[in-house]
Amino acid sequence: MSVQPSSDPAAGAAVKAADRAHVFHSWSAQGLIDPLAIAGAEGSYFWDYDGKRYLDFSCQLVNTNIGHQHPKVVAAIQEQAAKLCTIAPGFAVDVRSEAARLVAERTPGDLDKIFFTNGGAEAVENAVRMARLHTGRSKVLSAYRSYHGATAAAINLTGDPRRWPSDTASAGVVHFWAPFLYRSPFHADSEAQECERALRHLEDTIAFEGPQTIAAIILETIPGTAGIMVPPPGYLAGVREICDRYGIVFILDEVMAGFGRTGHWFAADHFGVTPDLLTFAKGVNSGYVPLGGVAISAEIAATFDQRPYPGGLTYSGHPLACASAIATINAMAEEGIVENAAAIGENVIGPGLREIAERHPSVGEVRGLGVFWALDLVRDEETREPLVPYNASGADNQPMADFAAACKRGGLWPFVNMNRTHVVPPCTVTEAEAKEGLAILDEALGAADAHTV
Amino acid sequence: MSVQPSSDPAAGAAVKAADRAHVFHSWSAQGLIDPLAIAGAEGSYFWDYDGKRYLDFSCQLVNTNIGHQHPKVVAAIQEQAAKLCTIAPGFAVDVRSEAARLVAERTPGDLDKIFFTNGGAEAVENAVRMARLHTGRSKVLSAYRSYHGATAAAINLTGDPRRWPSDTASAGVVHFWAPFLYRSPFHADSEAQECERALRHLEDTIAFEGPQTIAAIILETIPGTAGIMVPPPGYLAGVREICDRYGIVFILDEVMAGFGRTGHWFAADHFGVTPDLLTFAKGVNSGYVPLGGVAISAEIAATFDQRPYPGGLTYSGHPLACASAIATINAMAEEGIVENAAAIGENVIGPGLREIAERHPSVGEVRGLGVFWALDLVRDEETREPLVPYNASGADNQPMADFAAACKRGGLWPFVNMNRTHVVPPCTVTEAEAKEGLAILDEALGAADAHTV
Ligand SMILES: Cc1ncc(COP(=O)(O)O)c(C=O)c1O
Ligand SMILES: Cc1ncc(COP(=O)(O)O)c(C=O)c1O
Repeated sequence: MSVQPSSDPAAGAAVKAADRAHVFHSWSAQGLIDPLAIAGAEGSYFWDYDGKRYLDFSCQLVNTNIGHQHPKVVAAIQEQAAKLCTIAPGFAVDVRSEAARLVAERTPGDLDKIFFTNGGAEAVENAVRMARLHTGRSKVLSAYRSYHGATAAAINLTGDPRRWPSDTASAGVVHFWAPFLYRSPFHADSEAQECERALRHLEDTIAFEGPQTIAAIILETIPGTAGIMVPPPGYLAGVREICDRYGIVFILDEVMAGFGRTGHWFAADHFGVTPDLLTFAKGVNSGYVPLGGVAISAEIAATFDQRPYPGGLTYSGHPLACASAIATINAMAEEGIVENAAAIGENVIGPGLREIAERHPSVGEVRGLGVFWALDLVRDEETREPLVPYNASGADNQPMADFAAACKRGGLWPFVNMNRTHVVPPCTVTEAEAKEGLAILDEALGAADAHTV
Repeated sequence: MSVQPSSDPAAGAAVKAADRAHVFHSWSAQGLIDPLAIAGAEGSYFWDYDGKRYLDFSCQLVNTNIGHQHPKVVAAIQEQAAKLCTIAPGFAVDVRSEAARLVAERTPGDLDKIFFTNGGAEAVENAVRMARLHTGRSKVLSAYRSYHGATAAAINLTGDPRRWPSDTASAGVVHFWAPFLYRSPFHADSEAQECERALRHLEDTIAFEGPQTIAAIILETIPGTAGIMVPPPGYLAGVREICDRYGIVFILDEVMAGFGRTGHWFAADHFGVTPDLLTFAKGVNSGYVPLGGVAISAEIAATFDQRPYPGGLTYSGHPLACASAIATINAMAEEGIVENAAAIGENVIGPGLREIAERHPSVGEVRGLGVFWALDLVRDEETREPLVPYNASGADNQPMADFAAACKRGGLWPFVNMNRTHVVPPCTVTEAEAKEGLAILDEALGAADAHTV
């Protein structure tokens, strides 16, 4: 392999010392963290200053769908930097127009107008604003087991513990339960039953909240951070039908699931469903430059045809970000990267994980598709008791900490959330790399098995 | 001058057509806009596809403090792109550490920990979250005549009409009046009286809201979009003292005023005041890559030393953005760009605008400093009736539309908001460019004069 990191521990120590002096980190107790200093990255790998290389099975925060340092995207950024780094959102500019066209070409249905943002949270904020103004209603329904970002509206929509410290009881959000057969909120015992009961639960919730008070329902097409729960056949179509019946805007959040992650350009493509608004970020340009956005249906766009849309941000449609999106989307198309994600998922990761699961009592369920997989780890395969309690920390979280440490020792950087590890390598991952990663996981799961009953 | 745009109207028409097909624009009725297609930019100028060049007296959205396409910043982006475009916030990385150090070195007092975001709104969102968690209180006081961004918390803090469509009565925000002698909310007739009465008003508001319910007071150090009202001597020190007295977190929003705009690194430097949290974006890297952040006091950072800070975003401390910030800050220091902004303001723009004001009955007041100036345009110098009504549109706004059109005809891109034009060229603007712009303004103000009584 071409990537040969060198070792320079002193440089790494200096980077870390400077980090600890001045960088305030997300989601962390600043005094309790010990961030690894990173020296470089390429393709499916990154490495530290000790010359240790990690296979990136997390894609950072599940954003480097095209892998690290893709040469075509790097070149596009360099060229655009030389030409025009920034211009205000009010102007028309070639790369913004073309990036919008390439996104619109891929989004389902008539989602043909693109409002660009810097990231996922801002995309969700704007989708919700559009829905509220389009309907003249205020409530938004979102799912438990979801993540939608960390600005005020987005964090209130979120259905995980990160919402709690920022929760505003009055934010106009109502949480409901989405389908998840393995831990069924509806006591169902088949996909079909889970689907039917989940739709019934949603309908009941709407009836009791009052359909005419509800602006939107927002769902991750396939919930990401919350556990990669692929919805049962018919569920999303059922939600679509309910939204149509009550004039509710249907928002699909594809910030994590979009742009190849599931083996299609959008996860919605698996289900033949078109939302009214679709939020994206991450994979649109693999995060090489901050970028997100909302794809907007013709009907909602028309609401803001003669009436101003009251939202914006200084860097909407940023030229450098748009140039990197163009290069990313074109490279993904030219190089069959979405197809690769589908094939690796179907032929390597899926079968590989299922085989691993057989050997490990800690693996309760394997689920996913494309390069978007979760292992649901359990203390007890019978009761499905999670390997660690919900929102565990410190000693309670030791089993997962042990597992993550074993992965890292083995040279794999895992994505770990609560009692799960997600297998989310780049869409460009090769068969050999996927197999390398599966072997490391296989070994590391021994550390999880040690905590089973 | 080196910049010689060429003409290619067909290419411009194609860019615009593609824009109109797929780009959804901020703050606009999509059917009523006609965005100018931009072909390129350099230094203080940008140009369209007809070969028409504009002197950029708006700095886009007041962000290109270092001018367009500064070669050192372009080179830094290109080098970092080749090295490492993106890495997750959880790691330590050289450019993130160094950007944080360079920002912290310049922020006042002990604001030495930097939480990076993608832009200004996210910075404000996180500052407010920190203040609420630090104090355990929920209300935030902000000023009418302010802009703080367009995500849910930021737009509710905003004190201009852009808030109205997204207003949440329950957002926990209380608006008060900040000093503005020319249109005094307190019927004052001197700076000293305005200051005293504004502080009294704030104290009274706090007393009636309940000091123990108030987490933070947020102010733009010098309100930007709302009109560049330099606070009277003693006002910000007075707010600081009030905050200390009641244990209220003092947030200064320097997204627009920071990084050289006022002729100091931060506008707070003019007043010798240190807030507890300072938000920045725009000038930190002139918007070449989306970046913003919060500078955090030692005391507030300590709150999150053993307890996790519950906020984050995928691109916090983005390497490409941080590399561009390093290059921007270093170039500004090496080339004396902040000093240039101060000198041009004091020697050229200030005197020039005051001279212009004498000739034009439409100019009610000239105010500002550095490269941060406003002309308050009036129908009647006696009554100070604004040239157009508050939040005017359509025919009501014709006088300002005529003025802006005259500027553009003359080759100057103005910043226009309500009844004001702001003179906000880059901090790198030369004396000759500033004089060129003033001459165009001088002529264009004839169009405003035509609407005076
Ligand atoms: C589904 C989903 N929505 C929104 C977000 C927020 O995106 P960002 O972190 O760019 O604000 C995320 C981030 O993980 C996400 O996974
Ligand atoms: C003072 C101030 N705060 C916040 C913002 C919001 O910044 P952004 O548009 O990057 O979200 C702005 C933008 O103009 C601003 O001027």
